Amino acid sequence: MSYNTFGHIFRTTTWGESHGPALGATVDGVPPGVPLTPEMIQVWLDKRKPGQNKNTTQRNEPDAVKILSGVFEDTTTGTSIQLMIENTDQRSKDYGNIAQTFRPGHADLAYHQKYGLRDYRGGGRSSARETAARVASGGVAREVLKQVAPGIEIKGYMVQMGEKTIDRDRFDWATIDQNDFWCPDAAAAQEWEDYLGWLRKDDHNSVGAIIEVVARNVPAGIGAPVYAKLDTDLAAAMMSINAVKGVEIGEGMNAAALTGRDNADEIFYENGEICYGSNHAGGILGGISTGQDVVVRFAVKPTSSILSPRRSILMDGSPTEVVTKGRHDPCVGIRAVPVGEAMAACVILDHILLDRAQTGGVRGQIG
Amino acid sequence: MSYNTFGHIFRTTTWGESHGPALGATVDGVPPGVPLTPEMIQVWLDKRKPGQNKNTTQRNEPDAVKILSGVFEDTTTGTSIQLMIENTDQRSKDYGNIAQTFRPGHADLAYHQKYGLRDYRGGGRSSARETAARVASGGVAREVLKQVAPGIEIKGYMVQMGEKTIDRDRFDWATIDQNDFWCPDAAAAQEWEDYLGWLRKDDHNSVGAIIEVVARNVPAGIGAPVYAKLDTDLAAAMMSINAVKGVEIGEGMNAAALTGRDNADEIFYENGEICYGSNHAGGILGGISTGQDVVVRFAVKPTSSILSPRRSILMDGSPTEVVTKGRHDPCVGIRAVPVGEAMAACVILDHILLDRAQTGGVRGQIG
Amino acid sequence: MSYNTFGHIFRTTTWGESHGPALGATVDGVPPGVPLTPEMIQVWLDKRKPGQNKNTTQRNEPDAVKILSGVFEDTTTGTSIQLMIENTDQRSKDYGNIAQTFRPGHADLAYHQKYGLRDYRGGGRSSARETAARVASGGVAREVLKQVAPGIEIKGYMVQMGEKTIDRDRFDWATIDQNDFWCPDAAAAQEWEDYLGWLRKDDHNSVGAIIEVVARNVPAGIGAPVYAKLDTDLAAAMMSINAVKGVEIGEGMNAAALTGRDNADEIFYENGEICYGSNHAGGILGGISTGQDVVVRFAVKPTSSILSPRRSILMDGSPTEVVTKGRHDPCVGIRAVPVGEAMAACVILDHILLDRAQTGGVRGQIG
Amino acid sequence: MSYNTFGHIFRTTTWGESHGPALGATVDGVPPGVPLTPEMIQVWLDKRKPGQNKNTTQRNEPDAVKILSGVFEDTTTGTSIQLMIENTDQRSKDYGNIAQTFRPGHADLAYHQKYGLRDYRGGGRSSARETAARVASGGVAREVLKQVAPGIEIKGYMVQMGEKTIDRDRFDWATIDQNDFWCPDAAAAQEWEDYLGWLRKDDHNSVGAIIEVVARNVPAGIGAPVYAKLDTDLAAAMMSINAVKGVEIGEGMNAAALTGRDNADEIFYENGEICYGSNHAGGILGGISTGQDVVVRFAVKPTSSILSPRRSILMDGSPTEVVTKGRHDPCVGIRAVPVGEAMAACVILDHILLDRAQTGGVRGQIG
Repeated sequence: MSYNTFGHIFRTTTWGESHGPALGATVDGVPPGVPLTPEMIQVWLDKRKPGQNKNTTQRNEPDAVKILSGVFEDTTTGTSIQLMIENTDQRSKDYGNIAQTFRPGHADLAYHQKYGLRDYRGGGRSSARETAARVASGGVAREVLKQVAPGIEIKGYMVQMGEKTIDRDRFDWATIDQNDFWCPDAAAAQEWEDYLGWLRKDDHNSVGAIIEVVARNVPAGIGAPVYAKLDTDLAAAMMSINAVKGVEIGEGMNAAALTGRDNADEIFYENGEICYGSNHAGGILGGISTGQDVVVRFAVKPTSSILSPRRSILMDGSPTEVVTKGRHDPCVGIRAVPVGEAMAACVILDHILLDRAQTGGVRGQIG
Repeated sequence: MSYNTFGHIFRTTTWGESHGPALGATVDGVPPGVPLTPEMIQVWLDKRKPGQNKNTTQRNEPDAVKILSGVFEDTTTGTSIQLMIENTDQRSKDYGNIAQTFRPGHADLAYHQKYGLRDYRGGGRSSARETAARVASGGVAREVLKQVAPGIEIKGYMVQMGEKTIDRDRFDWATIDQNDFWCPDAAAAQEWEDYLGWLRKDDHNSVGAIIEVVARNVPAGIGAPVYAKLDTDLAAAMMSINAVKGVEIGEGMNAAALTGRDNADEIFYENGEICYGSNHAGGILGGISTGQDVVVRFAVKPTSSILSPRRSILMDGSPTEVVTKGRHDPCVGIRAVPVGEAMAACVILDHILLDRAQTGGVRGQIG
Repeated sequence: MSYNTFGHIFRTTTWGESHGPALGATVDGVPPGVPLTPEMIQVWLDKRKPGQNKNTTQRNEPDAVKILSGVFEDTTTGTSIQLMIENTDQRSKDYGNIAQTFRPGHADLAYHQKYGLRDYRGGGRSSARETAARVASGGVAREVLKQVAPGIEIKGYMVQMGEKTIDRDRFDWATIDQNDFWCPDAAAAQEWEDYLGWLRKDDHNSVGAIIEVVARNVPAGIGAPVYAKLDTDLAAAMMSINAVKGVEIGEGMNAAALTGRDNADEIFYENGEICYGSNHAGGILGGISTGQDVVVRFAVKPTSSILSPRRSILMDGSPTEVVTKGRHDPCVGIRAVPVGEAMAACVILDHILLDRAQTGGVRGQIG
Repeated sequence: MSYNTFGHIFRTTTWGESHGPALGATVDGVPPGVPLTPEMIQVWLDKRKPGQNKNTTQRNEPDAVKILSGVFEDTTTGTSIQLMIENTDQRSKDYGNIAQTFRPGHADLAYHQKYGLRDYRGGGRSSARETAARVASGGVAREVLKQVAPGIEIKGYMVQMGEKTIDRDRFDWATIDQNDFWCPDAAAAQEWEDYLGWLRKDDHNSVGAIIEVVARNVPAGIGAPVYAKLDTDLAAAMMSINAVKGVEIGEGMNAAALTGRDNADEIFYENGEICYGSNHAGGILGGISTGQDVVVRFAVKPTSSILSPRRSILMDGSPTEVVTKGRHDPCVGIRAVPVGEAMAACVILDHILLDRAQTGGVRGQIG
């Protein structure tokens, strides 16, 4: 990872600010011969798009993606793909009052301290709007995965909002797409809806969340020890998303509480297949995929932009109070779900390509 | 990060296996003119060295570092520094019985699946012995930091072993170096000692841990958004350490449970200094250091090598039971403390150098 | 360098095909606070622009650059800058007949062999049209150089066309911008004009050229031995330009013919300044700038698209003859002059930034 | 390329100074399962080794390579390989008088200006002794090439010494290994021998050379446009070798003198094979290998260390005369032959691995 680029082989470089004319991603290292149309990418952008329900920001952006290069006759050519999303609903006047103000919890002051100046319109480059470009790149990654590793499924969902977690016994894959929260537990989704409504309207507050992303059917052998491990790159990918403060693989932080006897994923060989008695490891050992489900979780802090006043300073150092009246998500974790999925897709594809560079994709066998 | 190298400017490439003749690190991008002797590095290796007390492995390695290049007349020249540590206590016979066995929880099977073969002696490259090279590089980073950003202090300690956490009210910096666990809470250290003794001798088991690393006096403005954020690189650095399953910055996973009002670190300007009402952010916003303490935590899973039998398979797929009688740490988290410190030192130095490339180190001011 | 990106700190990623909707460059690592407008970049694109006189292709492209990100209120913010140039004069029918044909000397067959398919319209990604994006990035580099290393001048010119070289005794900086060939020798320019007119109209042929780029006032100490030497990166930069087949620093290939006594650039110290008796080295020793003029030359092969028939094959392997009737430069070397300048500007800036990362820009003194 | 590392996938990081205890290379990205012993590498080091005849330096170094990691039971494991060569004949007293002196044509002053200090013993890191590490890495590359692209042959030879070129009509592959100059023309070799003897003994002088490296049977389709082209990376690799001032692919600088009609390599399809009427391109078009011989040439300047006095300055700026009495090659070009071969092997292997990452090694067909 380097400034605005991530990936080893499948490399994504993003650009654009919240209130500039456009934003986008240059996607490099894409294998040639993969069918690709804007529509294939748009479906994922639509999933992240703001303004879709009352639980996310009312900013209204179509987030329509254009492919400007790297695709010829609806097929990738192996050259760099430019994906552009024009900003249409910029309303920069909503943000004009913050030119002199550093919003607590945002990157305003940090950008000022680093760069000496900043594009203060909607957070500029530090806005989560940048993640639209990631989702677009993730859409490309998914189409490539269909060709180079068919069968991989990558699915994200929320498992916690505030202090309220899902009940794993009620986990239902089919439920995820049927509520505003990408929640696999219908009862929890209802509870969250009530809670978030109260938080937003009555408490003028916001709340954090935990997102889990699972990748199924990832072939064993992916990951490059010791500094480009699959879990290392997933951790970097998730931590680079706006507002993320923690990343876990498998048992995650809870691994500390376990004993070696409990944590061991025992290994069996049945019907010509390697299988495991459990998946505490989250599908990754020594930085390499084991063939089990790859499980990654990340925590998103509560939206910093809230209607409740918080104390801060102006450019000249004088004190102020910040109350954010703009259109903001009360729980940014919701829209982080497709972003986490996209990052996982990019990282997994990247590692499949990186692995075939070194090993040629040939695998050690058992039996 | 790429295979065996990490860092943007201050780049560390490690090499070596658990039971090969030697291991080491090539450290590149080191500023010239920095005083450096083997002794300055050795002090950190001694901290990580095995066999120092009954709570860590009884493998007896002096881990004496040699500087083979990049230093002239005890001063760095700006060229690549080679640090070599010879393996002396290899006893490969301890491990001979595992040539055909895949140990559960270890990378044995994953390496086999990726590479088709593996150096099975002590885990080969996947052994935590590799972290000695990181600690050596961290020793170099610390000496450079003294020159380029004097005043930075980086300190790691354990905050949880198994289910037993420290009591933050008893936190005492001075206590950390006075027990076998780098524990800042003397009472917890005693409790851990009793527990670990029982686990090792009576329960034939092991346990996980959480380590926290704090960096104080990191200048504001360090970190490169959006894909080489300071927290992104810290997350990658920690997750790349053997057995780590989770990484947190500031509130970490707990950020999910907070509301925006509670999580806001309010900003003040007093006596010409920016200060904050709290540090939920762990010293990093938008991927950039704020000048507050940088706080990172990571969870280390329990040692997979235990005396209790676990089920697994042999190369031919037939079932077996694995009981590890070698010399192993009952809680690898203990020796992960100096490793986490070293990684933090490397990442922070790297970002200071990277930042002066782009910004020249000049900062936006307040007031 | 990696696929579509070059540079260590000041990194340029280009995208776009000859006949796609647009092409451009994502420029990363730009220091903040640098004044930048589209007009500052446009002046260099205008220099490269086709259709300006009868000696270059009659394709008519305005090559108007737009800045889509990374600049706020006409100042760089330190975030990634997107430069976009829309293609307006695409006339893809000119090229339709080559869908099945591999043009000799072009990359058609090589792309087919590598990727299995290609965008055949005007060479697609292999078209020299890609160099417009480099020139745009070079325009950014020049503005940054004004801030970080004022006084640097980078100037390119042609020193040979076909077998006709300039006379160094007639070298005149002022002449360079006064003829169609960026030629510093007015007499040679006239000779070239006559020759090229005959080649194009009567001989249906094309011809190669040698371009020299000189950078003056580059500070001593720039360049990163041993694999990112200043000359190494200049060589890579120039060799990556379409149709370039050779690169020289200082004496270049002629260094082979010299003796050590003749080649030595003797060193003097006069009036507090280091100076040299000659500049056979081209301003670079050990990969590091010496403070003398940096001198790099590169040879551009003759345009492969000519009106004279050349034998080749079709997709099915059957023989054909290729005659190119499109609008092509009879000597692509002419328009390579601003491209070489741009690459030099990017590389020199990149190394100034890279150097201040490692050394902080502090220099060893004499006396 | 970055400081002390080159390569995308097959990455070599070198370390060590002329008069330090040892030097070496960390070789990363090596495919697993490749047979490798020190002897396989030693054969190439022996070719470069000093003191083998009167035409090269009389410094006597066995240059015995040790493999410290990455190889298990004489087979690569896929982990980083450490190659170490201990310095035995250091005689640093030969160089003691230059601590205060900047030798003209050497990197002494440039290193001082960049780093503020330098290891003056034998040039330290800027010594061509570093190339031993490259040759060792090249030895690894050759063994890997045998597995991943059998049939590739890489051979270097000298084609010019001073003003004396070989006669291509007398070119004989078998002759190359039968003289001290790796010269394919026996008559030229004799002429060079006489000339060099006079230069060294009577004229107290040195001379430059041109080396050509040819790679046969490189598969078509290797090379990553547009900034990691095969020729781009070869140019960088060769230019990074000490004393190299020019690099050419195919016609090289002479391409400028040709017309498009003459330069066209016409394409034919005969007996199911693509073939060409000529190879002006040097086997590379659009940065991608065509399947023809890859031909690269580079010019090495004359050794700067000569017995004839040259004027220079001391650290305090005062004038001096430099006469080098140490053991030096009168024509460093001779020993650059195996270095050029090694760099070509590394680059070609790297690109084969990089290509299979993106394209999977599948190729477009004809017919």
